[in-house]
Amino acid sequence: MNKIESTSDTRAALLAMGKAARRAARQLALASSETKNKALGLMAQAIRADAALIARENAADLEAAKHKELKSSFVDRLTLTPERIEAMAKGLDEIAALPDPVGHVTESWTRPNGLRIARVRVPIGVIGIIYESRPNVTADAGALAMKSGNAAILRGGSDSYRSSAAIVAALQRGLAEAGLPKEAIQMVPTMDRDAVGLLLSGLDGTVDLIVPRGGKSLVARVQQEARVPVFSHLEGICHVYVDKAADLDMAREIVRNAKMRRTGICGAAETILVDSAVAATHLKPLIATLADAGCEVRGCAETQAADPRVTKASEEDWSTEYLDAIVSMKVVAGLDAAMDHIARYGSQHTDAIITADEVAARRFLTEVDSAITLHNASTQFADGGEFGFGAEIGIATGRLHARGPVGLEQLTTFKYQVSGTGQIRP
Amino acid sequence: MNKIESTSDTRAALLAMGKAARRAARQLALASSETKNKALGLMAQAIRADAALIARENAADLEAAKHKELKSSFVDRLTLTPERIEAMAKGLDEIAALPDPVGHVTESWTRPNGLRIARVRVPIGVIGIIYESRPNVTADAGALAMKSGNAAILRGGSDSYRSSAAIVAALQRGLAEAGLPKEAIQMVPTMDRDAVGLLLSGLDGTVDLIVPRGGKSLVARVQQEARVPVFSHLEGICHVYVDKAADLDMAREIVRNAKMRRTGICGAAETILVDSAVAATHLKPLIATLADAGCEVRGCAETQAADPRVTKASEEDWSTEYLDAIVSMKVVAGLDAAMDHIARYGSQHTDAIITADEVAARRFLTEVDSAITLHNASTQFADGGEFGFGAEIGIATGRLHARGPVGLEQLTTFKYQVSGTGQIRP
Repeated sequence: MNKIESTSDTRAALLAMGKAARRAARQLALASSETKNKALGLMAQAIRADAALIARENAADLEAAKHKELKSSFVDRLTLTPERIEAMAKGLDEIAALPDPVGHVTESWTRPNGLRIARVRVPIGVIGIIYESRPNVTADAGALAMKSGNAAILRGGSDSYRSSAAIVAALQRGLAEAGLPKEAIQMVPTMDRDAVGLLLSGLDGTVDLIVPRGGKSLVARVQQEARVPVFSHLEGICHVYVDKAADLDMAREIVRNAKMRRTGICGAAETILVDSAVAATHLKPLIATLADAGCEVRGCAETQAADPRVTKASEEDWSTEYLDAIVSMKVVAGLDAAMDHIARYGSQHTDAIITADEVAARRFLTEVDSAITLHNASTQFADGGEFGFGAEIGIATGRLHARGPVGLEQLTTFKYQVSGTGQIRP
Repeated sequence: MNKIESTSDTRAALLAMGKAARRAARQLALASSETKNKALGLMAQAIRADAALIARENAADLEAAKHKELKSSFVDRLTLTPERIEAMAKGLDEIAALPDPVGHVTESWTRPNGLRIARVRVPIGVIGIIYESRPNVTADAGALAMKSGNAAILRGGSDSYRSSAAIVAALQRGLAEAGLPKEAIQMVPTMDRDAVGLLLSGLDGTVDLIVPRGGKSLVARVQQEARVPVFSHLEGICHVYVDKAADLDMAREIVRNAKMRRTGICGAAETILVDSAVAATHLKPLIATLADAGCEVRGCAETQAADPRVTKASEEDWSTEYLDAIVSMKVVAGLDAAMDHIARYGSQHTDAIITADEVAARRFLTEVDSAITLHNASTQFADGGEFGFGAEIGIATGRLHARGPVGLEQLTTFKYQVSGTGQIRP
C-alpha cells in the first residue's frame, strides 16, 4: 500500500476507495457463506504467515511512538506480541465459525391474493470503521464486516499505521486467494486528518454506515460530523438499583462485579442507587463491599454518613463515566425515584435492578429506557459475546436499527422478496 | 392554538414543543394498547363532532389559496369534503383496530449461564413529520405515530394551516379525554420557514426521527439538511423486466397494471426492460398494451422500430420518474443486462421480473438491490396495506432500520430485557 502524503491527493484517493468499496460490496453481498468462510480461513493463514513482518512493522510503530510520551495503556494497546498476532488469526477462524446472517428469512407470510412475501437479511453495504491505535481492531472489524457481506473502509489511529497496513495486506491476500475482491477490506492510505472528515461525509454516497471504536472524543466527533448513520455509544453511565426487596448477598455480589470486574469497559456500573427502605441494613455492607475491593466511593449525605471512607459526591458525579475504580452512590426513595434518576443522568446504555419483587423488576425492565435493562444480573453482561452473538463490533445507544451489542446480525439490513403468479393490483 | 408570527419566537416555541413531545413520549411509551385504542376512538369521534368547524377552516384555507394560482391537483388535495372528513375519522378507527407492536417480544433465548434475554419492541420516541398541504395527512400521520407509542410533531404545508390546526385540536381533545397527554400530537404553530430547519436539526436532541411525506423537492431538502435519521424515498424508478421465459399474457397484464393503474404513485413502473431473446414476439404486443391504454412510450432504437408510436428515449429518460402516463422501454441482452441497467439507473425502491424460469426469478429477487423485489407481480403492490401492514406512513429506500413500506412495526425500535437470578460475569 502506497501511503499518500499530500492533502490534495486525499480526496481523490478516498473517493476512488469508496467507489471500489461499493463495487466490492456488490460482489460480497452475493458471495456464499462457504466462500466467505474460506476467505476468513485464508486471511487467518496469511496473518500467521506474515507474523514476523507484522511484528517488524509494529516495532517500527512503537519506535516512532517512543518520542511522543504516550500513556503506557496506549502503548500497551499498540503493542503486538506473537501471542496477540496469533490471537488475531484465531479471531478470524472464530468469525468463520459463526452463522452467516445473510440470506436468512426472518419472516414470511402469504397475502389473501396469494402473494408470498419474505423478509430476507441482506448486507448493509459499505461500512466505514474509525478506531484508535489498536492494530488488532483492523483484523477484527474487517472480518466482522466481511462475514456479514459488507465492504469495510478502515481508518485506525496514526500511531498504528504501519502495523495496520501490514495486517490489511495479509487480509487482502486471503480475500484474493478465496476469489473475493481485495477491496472488500481497504484501509485509508493516509494519516491526513482530512480523511476522517471525508469518510464521515459518506464519500459521495458510497459509505452507508460509520462505526467508531474508541474513546469519547473520537465518538463525539463522529456523532457530530457524520452525514451517514452511525452505530455508537458516547458513554455508558450504567446504574445498579438495589431495591427494598433485594437479597443483600446477591446485591453485594452483583454490585462488586458490575463495578469492579473490569472498570474500563462501557458496561461497568458507575452509579449505585439504594432504596431508602433498606438503607439501614443494606447501605453499609454495599459500601464496604466496594471500598474493601479498592473502589473509591462518592456518595450522597446519607451514604457519607454510613461509612467514613465515602467522600462527597458533587452534582457532576451523577453524570460521570469514571471508567475507573470510582463509584457514585445515592439513597433514593424507591423504584420511581431510581427510575427518575436514571432517566435524568443515564446514557440509555445498560441499567440493572436487584430485587426479589417480580412486579418491581417488570416495571424496571419495561420503563427504564435503555438499550439493555437487567434484573438480578451484572451490567457487565452488556457484551455481544455474553449475549451469544459470538463477536461484536461495539455497543450502540442510538435508537434506530442497532441497539445494544452490534454483532453480525446488526451489520445486516433486509429486503422484501415477493413471489407471485401474475398478480396485479385491483 | 395560537399562531406564532415572529421568527425570533419560532426557535423558543419549537424547543419547548420538542421538550413537551419528549415528556409525552415517555408517557405514551408506557400506555396500554387499550388506552391508545380508546384515544383513537375518541379522536375519531372528535373529528366527527368538529366536522363543520374543520370544513369552515378548510374553506378559509381554500379561499386564501384561490389567489395563488395553484394547480388543480394541489387544490384537490387541499380540499376536505364531508366524505373526506368522515374518511379521516374512519381511518383513525381502522388504526385502532391494528395490532399494537409495542411490547411484542420478537426473540428470546436463554444463555448457558441461565440469563434469559428478550428482544422487545419499544417506541422510537419523538417523530417529526413534514408534509405538504394535505390536511388528511395530519390525522393519519399523528395517529400512526401515536398508536406505535411515539409522540408526533407535525408540520404540514402552509396552505393547509387552518385545516390542520382544526384537525389537531380535535385529535388533542381525543387524547386528553383518554387520559393521554395532548402533547403526544403537536403541530408546529407557525408557517415561518425556519421552523422546518429547526425541526430537521432535531430540536436539541428531542426529535429521534423525521418522516417527510411529499414530493421530491421536499424529500430532497429533508435528506440534505436533517441531522437526525430520516425514513424516506426520493423517487421510485421502478422497473419491470420481461424475461425470455415470460408468459406474454401475464407480462402484458402486469406491465399495464404496473404502469397505468395509478401513474402518480411511487410504486408505478417507469421503465420496461424486454429480453432481446423474445423481442421478436413480445416487444410489439407490450408496446401496444401500453400505447393502447394511453401511455406515451419512449424507447431504445429497437423499441422504436417495433411501433411507430414509440418516440426516442434520451439517456435522461432511463433515470426519470415520470409519475405520469409515460414509460421508457428498452431491449436488453438478458437477465444480467437487465440487472445491470437497474443497478445503474434504479432508485432501490421496487423492481419486478416476469418469468416462468425459477432460477432467473431467484437470481433477480436476490441480486437486485432494492427494498422490494417481485416475481410475477405488479410493482404497484409496493404499499403497506398490500403488504398487510394495515397502514403506512410512507416507503423508505434508505438501508437502515426501515426499508420498503413503513408501518406501525417500523415506527418502533427494540430493547433487550435480561432476567437473571444473581448472575455475575466471570
